[in-house]
Amino acid sequence: MRWPRGFSSAAVRSGLKPSGTLDLGVLASDRPATLAGLSTSNLVKAAPVRVTQRVIDAGRARAVVVNAGNANACTGDRGIEVAEMMQAATADLLGCDPNEVAVASTGIIGVQMPTELVREGIAMTADATSSEVLPLARAIMTTDTRPKIAEAAVGSARIVGIAKGAGMIAPEMATMLCFIATDAQVGREDLDAALRSAASNSFEQISVDGCMSTNDTVLLLANGAAGPVDPEAFSAALSAVCASLADQIVSDGEGATKVIDIFVGGARDLAAARRCARSVADSVLFRCAMNGGDPNWGRILSALGASGADIDPDRIAVRIGGEDLCVGGERGPGDLAKAEAALKADRIRVDIDLGMGDQAAKVTTNDLSAEYVRINAEYTT
Amino acid sequence: MRWPRGFSSAAVRSGLKPSGTLDLGVLASDRPATLAGLSTSNLVKAAPVRVTQRVIDAGRARAVVVNAGNANACTGDRGIEVAEMMQAATADLLGCDPNEVAVASTGIIGVQMPTELVREGIAMTADATSSEVLPLARAIMTTDTRPKIAEAAVGSARIVGIAKGAGMIAPEMATMLCFIATDAQVGREDLDAALRSAASNSFEQISVDGCMSTNDTVLLLANGAAGPVDPEAFSAALSAVCASLADQIVSDGEGATKVIDIFVGGARDLAAARRCARSVADSVLFRCAMNGGDPNWGRILSALGASGADIDPDRIAVRIGGEDLCVGGERGPGDLAKAEAALKADRIRVDIDLGMGDQAAKVTTNDLSAEYVRINAEYTT
Repeated sequence: MRWPRGFSSAAVRSGLKPSGTLDLGVLASDRPATLAGLSTSNLVKAAPVRVTQRVIDAGRARAVVVNAGNANACTGDRGIEVAEMMQAATADLLGCDPNEVAVASTGIIGVQMPTELVREGIAMTADATSSEVLPLARAIMTTDTRPKIAEAAVGSARIVGIAKGAGMIAPEMATMLCFIATDAQVGREDLDAALRSAASNSFEQISVDGCMSTNDTVLLLANGAAGPVDPEAFSAALSAVCASLADQIVSDGEGATKVIDIFVGGARDLAAARRCARSVADSVLFRCAMNGGDPNWGRILSALGASGADIDPDRIAVRIGGEDLCVGGERGPGDLAKAEAALKADRIRVDIDLGMGDQAAKVTTNDLSAEYVRINAEYTT
Repeated sequence: MRWPRGFSSAAVRSGLKPSGTLDLGVLASDRPATLAGLSTSNLVKAAPVRVTQRVIDAGRARAVVVNAGNANACTGDRGIEVAEMMQAATADLLGCDPNEVAVASTGIIGVQMPTELVREGIAMTADATSSEVLPLARAIMTTDTRPKIAEAAVGSARIVGIAKGAGMIAPEMATMLCFIATDAQVGREDLDAALRSAASNSFEQISVDGCMSTNDTVLLLANGAAGPVDPEAFSAALSAVCASLADQIVSDGEGATKVIDIFVGGARDLAAARRCARSVADSVLFRCAMNGGDPNWGRILSALGASGADIDPDRIAVRIGGEDLCVGGERGPGDLAKAEAALKADRIRVDIDLGMGDQAAKVTTNDLSAEYVRINAEYTT
């Protein structure tokens, strides 16, 4: 797949990843682009997140420079200096203002960046420029097992996004990097509104382990090369791109063997619906049961009761694999063996009805496996 | 060990546990005892929790009847009827008022209790009465690998407690059953205050998996057989008993290979200190790192930043195994290899200084192992 008109990217092996694979790259536009962005709500924000916030605030960017292998988080003033160096080095190459370069990093926390490797890596990108999306999508991977790419068309314009993220994924901001480029011409306010709407229904509704990272960043660059588009059509197409990327992230969750869509309906308000869905998605016990293929609806009720949302246990219904396992807060007529059979699938649907109103929400998560523990016991993030 | 004066217990094999081990029992006082109790804050409360709340409200009990193997949770009106039958059957045996019998259950959620097994089991306790503590401590075990017993003396009186709990342990109320008997003569208000104080510094400060159960119950019976005691001395002794039992629960956490004490100091207020300590204790990523012996202080900072507490990342210090791994929010001078060596111990101490005030809190947790996942993927709780 190729980037939209006017965009190109470059990916190189800077040596930041011990594996020696692609680990640094630049996404650039041949003309200034309108920028919208979102970043982690964790109070411990990595240096690149803080530096990039200024670029987001200015609403304009020519490029994004990104590295994997080191998060440049908890690195103090030196970390800020390195992030600013990354801006300046990229701006030098492109002949633009450093303030038009966003920076993102992912990898180990609390280790200073090897400045020279990064500087040399950025210089190397000059000879690696391509219109292909895949190399940059590969360069941002950490424990991801596959690159994540999605696209959509809006009239004559296109939207192309890449993402990384496989652990430390939590609602409120999935732990991830996501860069989206479009040649549509969209005003700053419309761009910002479209991104917030798309993210709130995608990245903010997935959970892998309930852990919120220090480096989450979503950036959307619109360079206008394809001219204006209908704002509503743009928003819908962007939502589709974000939904696909969010789904790819959950499917690739560390150690995951299956994806679980948790639908909560019958809530008094949206906040309660989301809170309930997240409480189930973040329940370690529920996720272990899904791993074992155990239709343990009691753990779902327990997670709902502990969610902090105002619920009435006696009105709750739970359906797994189409079987009504719980009705009115107790065992329903559903067939347990059939529900168990349904849990053997790669993708599972759990329906929860709170019986209190008409608001609904969905959170997508995956199962917790012994393999997840192995990955995270051994890998220093 | 024996119960305090005037108390006895009985434990039998009713058949509720598929393993055929002890699974039902009664703790009784030969005279009415003052009762204090605490139960889960989960909105989904098991039938015995709801029935026992009435007994706690009355503040007076002769006995506790308890079973393992079935939680009698999410069982609707029939569940309440079974819990009330358990009260009545026990009262019949002891010749007391059913309203003086507390009920507790632990085990699988959402399955109706096998009423006849329970009724016959209670009848069988008549021939199993003993002053020994151990049989009842064994009868309440589920995934526990060992019985949990603690005692303390106050003047000529004694306090003896038993507990169960190995999974679904979370702050706000560790998922557990705990029954404490004392022959001290203590007024209802003093008894209640002493229990709340002891629990807030023990059971409410441990976390195994962040999951809050539907059945948590802590009961304290004081029958006065040894006469009055100094209230402060009683409170201190009770705190010691609860602290020991809480510690035994964390040490026996499902699949746990080590216990981790998380001390948070330098907080603006106690709530912030506790919130921070719990956020670290509940972090799946931190607990995986502890399992792997990885002194990953970055995950600690990330958990602190996501805790919701008002913190300043640039003031945080983290010490593991006496090594200052993080100072002022970035890598400190501590030796990483020495910290790694310290993580090989069975008991680990993590010190966090928020640098914002003088309030402190401690939460004790354990590591997350592949074995935990295996236990909870296969066991229908």
